[in-house]
Amino acid sequence: MTFPVSPDPFILAGRTVRSRLLVGTGKYADLNQTREAVEASGAEIVTVAIRRTNIGQNPGEPNLLDVISPDRYTLLPNTAGCYTAEEAVRTLRLARELLDGHALVKLEVLGDADTLFPNMVETLEAAEILIREGFEVMVYCSDDPILARRLEDLGCVAIMPLASLIGSGMGILNPWNLGIILERAQIPVIVDAGVGTASDAAIAMELGCAGVLMNTAIAQARHPVQMAKAMALAVEAGRLSWRAGRMPKKPYRASASSPLSGLIQ
Amino acid sequence: MTFPVSPDPFILAGRTVRSRLLVGTGKYADLNQTREAVEASGAEIVTVAIRRTNIGQNPGEPNLLDVISPDRYTLLPNTAGCYTAEEAVRTLRLARELLDGHALVKLEVLGDADTLFPNMVETLEAAEILIREGFEVMVYCSDDPILARRLEDLGCVAIMPLASLIGSGMGILNPWNLGIILERAQIPVIVDAGVGTASDAAIAMELGCAGVLMNTAIAQARHPVQMAKAMALAVEAGRLSWRAGRMPKKPYRASASSPLSGLIQ
Amino acid sequence: MTFPVSPDPFILAGRTVRSRLLVGTGKYADLNQTREAVEASGAEIVTVAIRRTNIGQNPGEPNLLDVISPDRYTLLPNTAGCYTAEEAVRTLRLARELLDGHALVKLEVLGDADTLFPNMVETLEAAEILIREGFEVMVYCSDDPILARRLEDLGCVAIMPLASLIGSGMGILNPWNLGIILERAQIPVIVDAGVGTASDAAIAMELGCAGVLMNTAIAQARHPVQMAKAMALAVEAGRLSWRAGRMPKKPYRASASSPLSGLIQ
Amino acid sequence: MTFPVSPDPFILAGRTVRSRLLVGTGKYADLNQTREAVEASGAEIVTVAIRRTNIGQNPGEPNLLDVISPDRYTLLPNTAGCYTAEEAVRTLRLARELLDGHALVKLEVLGDADTLFPNMVETLEAAEILIREGFEVMVYCSDDPILARRLEDLGCVAIMPLASLIGSGMGILNPWNLGIILERAQIPVIVDAGVGTASDAAIAMELGCAGVLMNTAIAQARHPVQMAKAMALAVEAGRLSWRAGRMPKKPYRASASSPLSGLIQ
Repeated sequence: MTFPVSPDPFILAGRTVRSRLLVGTGKYADLNQTREAVEASGAEIVTVAIRRTNIGQNPGEPNLLDVISPDRYTLLPNTAGCYTAEEAVRTLRLARELLDGHALVKLEVLGDADTLFPNMVETLEAAEILIREGFEVMVYCSDDPILARRLEDLGCVAIMPLASLIGSGMGILNPWNLGIILERAQIPVIVDAGVGTASDAAIAMELGCAGVLMNTAIAQARHPVQMAKAMALAVEAGRLSWRAGRMPKKPYRASASSPLSGLIQ
Repeated sequence: MTFPVSPDPFILAGRTVRSRLLVGTGKYADLNQTREAVEASGAEIVTVAIRRTNIGQNPGEPNLLDVISPDRYTLLPNTAGCYTAEEAVRTLRLARELLDGHALVKLEVLGDADTLFPNMVETLEAAEILIREGFEVMVYCSDDPILARRLEDLGCVAIMPLASLIGSGMGILNPWNLGIILERAQIPVIVDAGVGTASDAAIAMELGCAGVLMNTAIAQARHPVQMAKAMALAVEAGRLSWRAGRMPKKPYRASASSPLSGLIQ
Repeated sequence: MTFPVSPDPFILAGRTVRSRLLVGTGKYADLNQTREAVEASGAEIVTVAIRRTNIGQNPGEPNLLDVISPDRYTLLPNTAGCYTAEEAVRTLRLARELLDGHALVKLEVLGDADTLFPNMVETLEAAEILIREGFEVMVYCSDDPILARRLEDLGCVAIMPLASLIGSGMGILNPWNLGIILERAQIPVIVDAGVGTASDAAIAMELGCAGVLMNTAIAQARHPVQMAKAMALAVEAGRLSWRAGRMPKKPYRASASSPLSGLIQ
Repeated sequence: MTFPVSPDPFILAGRTVRSRLLVGTGKYADLNQTREAVEASGAEIVTVAIRRTNIGQNPGEPNLLDVISPDRYTLLPNTAGCYTAEEAVRTLRLARELLDGHALVKLEVLGDADTLFPNMVETLEAAEILIREGFEVMVYCSDDPILARRLEDLGCVAIMPLASLIGSGMGILNPWNLGIILERAQIPVIVDAGVGTASDAAIAMELGCAGVLMNTAIAQARHPVQMAKAMALAVEAGRLSWRAGRMPKKPYRASASSPLSGLIQ
């Protein structure tokens, strides 16, 4: 019997991570729902917007760490809301202090507040500084394969291209660019932003991504906790499908002279 | 806590079926692989091409029932290879004899051997005869919403539109037609044919299908047993995602005056 | 010099037609706009809904023939609004009387008023009767390649599959089915219904269609007369592009082992 | 009568250009075919790869200017084959000498020879230098809306995002990013690279692009001269269609509760 399959550990920055689904903590009704959804997702890595979330900066206020315990989850501080390299670097230095020297971070430097598209020039600058300071940088980026490679060359530990705009739920708009990045990267490629539904997550994994990070797709579903579970299954399904090796597509007689040839060549 | 979710039984022809993934038995390396893949899929309903598979017609030859036991699985005889209503009806009468009066069947009447597209005129005719004779007819059909409705009105127990050509692995080519069928049907709609990878199955379920039937996508994967498991997870993920209610898509500023408006309106 | 190109006449029912763009006459602001748009479209064949348009049935009322002269245009009576073979046949017999024995007609038998999707069973029945009575039948149909072939075998002079629902402007939802029809048909295949913008018309022609019929895309554009001209150019562009033979698509390294292979194989 | 339409001049760097189709001169069978295709395209602006094409650098060899006369066409020197800002700047300085002080240029700095994807960091650097030196810079770029804006802010006279990889003929892979660029740009946005067939060009224009630049789609068509003509028509059709204002898309009952809602919202 060829099943169960061989081990397929997810290695990130030298650590083995138990789930390929990474989740955010924003946009939930309350901290209790956050806790339930994160739990249902099975995620180990949970990302936290340092500028928006209290993880100890504001003593006396509700603290995310009360429901997402650092003993159980790997917290991934992120720089949501930062528009310059300088802001992002400062924010992550603060996070490191708050989290007792924690080095694994998610860098995002945004281009503007309307699109939340990354500013790649500032992102490159911030990545360089952070890596020099010993951070392990997972980096939100565009799907530009040349710049993705440059981030890898700088020493980032994971490349995190957007599938579509943050919070848009539009799915993977350009699987071709993502594919080029995947074919070349030696470090994990994790789709970050744009996933809207379970099949989007499965598609990302079937393209060969190492993981998927999402927040809105779960938090803004009608039933977030159920959606968290659906996403966990979808990531697993997509990964297993990728490993199993899909059948080739066989369009009807796509000969060179066929009217269909333009569709698939 | 809103999770675990409320029950979501799959009721087909009055019975509760334990999996929304239905599988075929053709195109495997051997009967052992068939058994392993079917088992890994978690399917309860297993469809059998009566014209191509020995379920007792040819005594002394390998018998599918030795690996797919009717005690454990619900066998679904199908009419693969039939090109007229008459052939299909005759084939299913034979199946009923071989299977001791078994009434649940899958009707497919093909238009030609190149496309394996259904012949809808013959299909309607066969469905009418079979229903009159007491069969419970699940019916392979095109994605024509008018004819799908007619099949329902005749008394079929499930409508099974193709996603794309049998064995093509092209996925759901026209989700819009499928959506119209889904919005109107009072009986289960099960995508039959064309699924190629796990995300295709998830998409079918997210559209609201009651189930997915596949064969080639599993049997012709590089590792069929792993793919069977991937498909089981994908069907579950898609179903749960559909129940959870996905977030709305939020394309960037798609105002009427925007260059993007044509893309989404 | 290889240009100008060889002649490319559009032969329909034995006649040479001067434009591959066919247009309807409904949904315009007034008869004057109808006239201007039809003129700008360059169409020779202009289809008229006999049940909705006065071409002489109602003496004393505005008559379409006053602006669309039968001396200049080939009028194509159609059966819009008919839901049974019987209604459609009756309507076209009336049209023949009103138009002095005119035999070229467009048959459409609708499945319901919500989708305006064709009822293919009634369509087949009506086609058979009309052909027996000497009509030259152009036939609105689904994109089902088996039934399209049957309509050709019955003796229709053109097959007119919908691109998407009438009046929807959704474009060609399933180019694959259309491609199978095109590969097999010996008579002109004309996309009828669903075109929304100029590129939709170009795509239809690039697939190898002999022509495109549209109404809403022109009449409901912000500037119908300009859109009529745009459509004329798009049909010509698409036809010439198809004849010129497009370059092959060359996706980036789509090797079997590439993450991109699933996208294009 | 609302037709003919109001004037729609294409203003680029302060000049009125007579065609929105811009063409390249590479990959043709010979200079004669180049001449015929360029003529059939109706283009005024013709781009020339300075590193690959003799426009006087190599006296005694065939000279492109003999068939593409600067009296008749606006030559647009480009930096195809340059991988650094420095190479690109040097190449365009040479072009300016060869062309008697000609300031309008197309900058492209490539990321690597496999993808020919732009290197946006080097592109920004080169653009800055060239603008300082008085060049009028049209710039090949990715579809990153933040960097496109930055190029505009630097003073480029046209933004030229790729539709897909140079020479791939894959069409517009991400109309959404292109749409964001279009919505924000105050200077002409011209799709450069990736167009494969006439409808691709029409789609670019319908999104609101000011023009389309192509080479391979014409030169590598089976009949380049015919394809050049098809492209001219397609660009005109797409532009006119965009100006005419397409009908809204009307998907079947896309209510929030519909299975179709995920498809279009």
